[in-house]
Amino acid sequence: MARGQTPETGRIGLSRRQVLLGGAVAGAGAVVAVGADALTRRATTSGPTATRAEPHEVLHGGDTVAFYGEHQAGIATTPPQSCATLVALDLRPETDRDALRRMMRLLTDDAARLTQGRSALADSEPELAVVPARLTVTFGFGPELVRRTAAVAPPWLRPLPAFGIDRLDDAWSDGDLLLQVAADDALTVAHAVRMLLKDTRRFATVRWTQAGFRRARGSEASTTTMRNLFGQVDGTVNPEPGTADFDEVVWSRDGWLAGGTSMVVRRIAMNLDTWDKLDRDGREQSVGRLLANGAPLTGTQEHDEPDFEATTPLGFPVIPEFSHVRRARSDDPRERIFRRSYNYDDAPRGEEISASGLVFIACQADVDAQYVPLQRRLDELDLLNEWTTPIGSAVFAIPPGCAEGGFVGETLLA
Amino acid sequence: MARGQTPETGRIGLSRRQVLLGGAVAGAGAVVAVGADALTRRATTSGPTATRAEPHEVLHGGDTVAFYGEHQAGIATTPPQSCATLVALDLRPETDRDALRRMMRLLTDDAARLTQGRSALADSEPELAVVPARLTVTFGFGPELVRRTAAVAPPWLRPLPAFGIDRLDDAWSDGDLLLQVAADDALTVAHAVRMLLKDTRRFATVRWTQAGFRRARGSEASTTTMRNLFGQVDGTVNPEPGTADFDEVVWSRDGWLAGGTSMVVRRIAMNLDTWDKLDRDGREQSVGRLLANGAPLTGTQEHDEPDFEATTPLGFPVIPEFSHVRRARSDDPRERIFRRSYNYDDAPRGEEISASGLVFIACQADVDAQYVPLQRRLDELDLLNEWTTPIGSAVFAIPPGCAEGGFVGETLLA
Ligand code: HEM
Ligand code: HEM
Repeated sequence: MARGQTPETGRIGLSRRQVLLGGAVAGAGAVVAVGADALTRRATTSGPTATRAEPHEVLHGGDTVAFYGEHQAGIATTPPQSCATLVALDLRPETDRDALRRMMRLLTDDAARLTQGRSALADSEPELAVVPARLTVTFGFGPELVRRTAAVAPPWLRPLPAFGIDRLDDAWSDGDLLLQVAADDALTVAHAVRMLLKDTRRFATVRWTQAGFRRARGSEASTTTMRNLFGQVDGTVNPEPGTADFDEVVWSRDGWLAGGTSMVVRRIAMNLDTWDKLDRDGREQSVGRLLANGAPLTGTQEHDEPDFEATTPLGFPVIPEFSHVRRARSDDPRERIFRRSYNYDDAPRGEEISASGLVFIACQADVDAQYVPLQRRLDELDLLNEWTTPIGSAVFAIPPGCAEGGFVGETLLA
Repeated sequence: MARGQTPETGRIGLSRRQVLLGGAVAGAGAVVAVGADALTRRATTSGPTATRAEPHEVLHGGDTVAFYGEHQAGIATTPPQSCATLVALDLRPETDRDALRRMMRLLTDDAARLTQGRSALADSEPELAVVPARLTVTFGFGPELVRRTAAVAPPWLRPLPAFGIDRLDDAWSDGDLLLQVAADDALTVAHAVRMLLKDTRRFATVRWTQAGFRRARGSEASTTTMRNLFGQVDGTVNPEPGTADFDEVVWSRDGWLAGGTSMVVRRIAMNLDTWDKLDRDGREQSVGRLLANGAPLTGTQEHDEPDFEATTPLGFPVIPEFSHVRRARSDDPRERIFRRSYNYDDAPRGEEISASGLVFIACQADVDAQYVPLQRRLDELDLLNEWTTPIGSAVFAIPPGCAEGGFVGETLLA
């Protein structure tokens, strides 16, 4: 689905922002009015600094994603925004059910405001809030948070079983509360994260933070797939937001989680140094797809259906049996997930020339029924395991969205 | 100067990239042809995946900044790109003058290719190279590198004098070779950094890496000023690239450095937590400018000239004498610098709710004559010091650019 075509997206212009800031931003060189003509989408400038803007540059800093609704935003939001920061928090010992309700009300109110380009309630830098850039804030609950509400937790809400490939670091694992903050602008994300962490301060402390990126908005034609740091097209076979199939795979129908989902966050190191030593053919075999455009080894276009039966003249499968895509595909149509990952690229140290990987993010209605069997198969055998290592792992319940006046988590806490 | 209006910028389309990759990218969903009509700048899609692109989204991933020229790119490139990674390296003991020449040839060749959207010579992920997004690579030389060439170093090529406000960490300071890699796309930067570090591997090890960001391209009308994480408009009083004034302030005229400049990189922590406790008035007094639009306290528009003589009815200066802008302005017109800073936002830990600041970058022809007196004045007295702490410091000589066939550093190494 192309950008701006979902009913959930909107756009704000200068006049609205002027009102919100009491007219204070009028005259700021950095603020422009965006015409309502969504078809031509040409930017117009206003005020004394008009000459500083390039008149035909299309601006999208004012684009918004609706906050309120049946589902939380940031899951089906497509294409995924170019920057995301995930923060996991540990609840303070004294944060009880009442405190959780207060915290989620605060967080909901500020998320609702920030995502629409309005400053948070106690915003210390309101000028940083005027560029929503499709900001979404998605809240997730870990096992301990649900325990404190005395509600019944879904059986899958616990750490994943241990896998042979895992080299997990506590510092990247688990957590009681998750914030996924995503936008097409890194400054917007930084500001929103900070405002939200001010709300959580009395109730929780930061456990881990993972920042990730995909191609910048406007770098390429909008697409739901991305290139990861191995150079692969990533995200091709994925349920498509807005379809019945997506709804089936992703949204839960159970109790307080109905309209919500689960999120598995795996930090997976990608060893670019050893990957570099593999030739192009070996790389394509390990995944089962072409590097050039992501087509299956049996096809020519990215979205061609792979033919797992096709054999080479010598009788070997064209798509190796142990390739990542072969192993990741189950005969059981229930064993499917929705992937929405980000690249990370930490500073290399000493002899290292990279410390990169994926903040792998998967959403599905039921972790045990959909995610675990798949991960188990990949754990057993997957050529890609040679170059990838899970170093962090966390599972969260993503509660449903809420209507204006409500708050995220109300089905559990109200 | 608005984007795309400088003679040094260009744009590449699909056909060129197709040729470069031997046609391999044809049909990739993520690659589009960009029409040559720079006035309307509407993107057109080609190939079977055209329906996946939003036809009116303006694409700028193909925008390029010329690599070859009198000066290195990435200094006068305006507006500064939205992402930058700075890497400082320590030379291996055995890296002598000959090795330095070989290294700079390799680096120059790959930088020239990557900045034009072509893969590096031994590019392991050539598909990641096709989105230059105004990529620039700027090389800087530390004192030790110049010493190994036996050339005469400019007298200012050494660590800055110690300042009272400094709390420097070795891990963020000094270095023999600097790479400043900047583009409007984080994936482009990550890939370019990696390819360049492969070239340096035999010659040097990574000392520090600092990644920074400004507003995304297209978030706002293009502007040379940015908002830092204090919410301030930053970069207002700055020589303007393309003017005689800029050339005077920035470019050196001395020996092998003629056409080059110096770069001071200061990592400056900004204490957002204590800054938050200060009221709006106090914040504006500490800098001497309005938060809303960056206008001086004596004016209404960002670019109004501050009136340092103006007094309040009670006789106090309207712009406090100890405000940052008052202290940063010298009566001596030689004491000026060109600032091109980036925000950083590290993961907060425990009770922290932010670990943010500026990768402060200043270029000037002569560090001792232009930068040091200014920094000394700010060290003595600057209200902003209450909330800012320099934690890293490095000084590099930025050699001039080169012509095709030459290499950066040739005036020193050839
Ligand atoms: C760093 C680690 C990983 C990398 C680099 C990676 C890369 C890829 C690539 C390139 C594809 C083919 C294009 C696509 O359909 O997206 C793919 C497919 C897929 N991956 Fe991964 N992946 C990783 C980890 C995982 C994990 C941990 C899981 C789940 C446990 C997973 C599940 C899948 C699934 C379900 C598919 C689609 C398979 C199909 O065609 O039906 N991947 N992955
Ligand atoms: C985190 C640290 C810093 C922050 C947040 C900061 C912020 C600002 C702000 C908001 C302005 C006013 C707008 C503008 O003209 O850009 C300014 C001006 C300026 N700053 Fe800084 N600054 C910092 C560090 C420094 C340092 C280390 C230097 C040089 C040693 C410096 C030199 C200047 C100069 C020369 C001006 C222009 C003064 C004029 O109006 O003539 N700043 N800075």
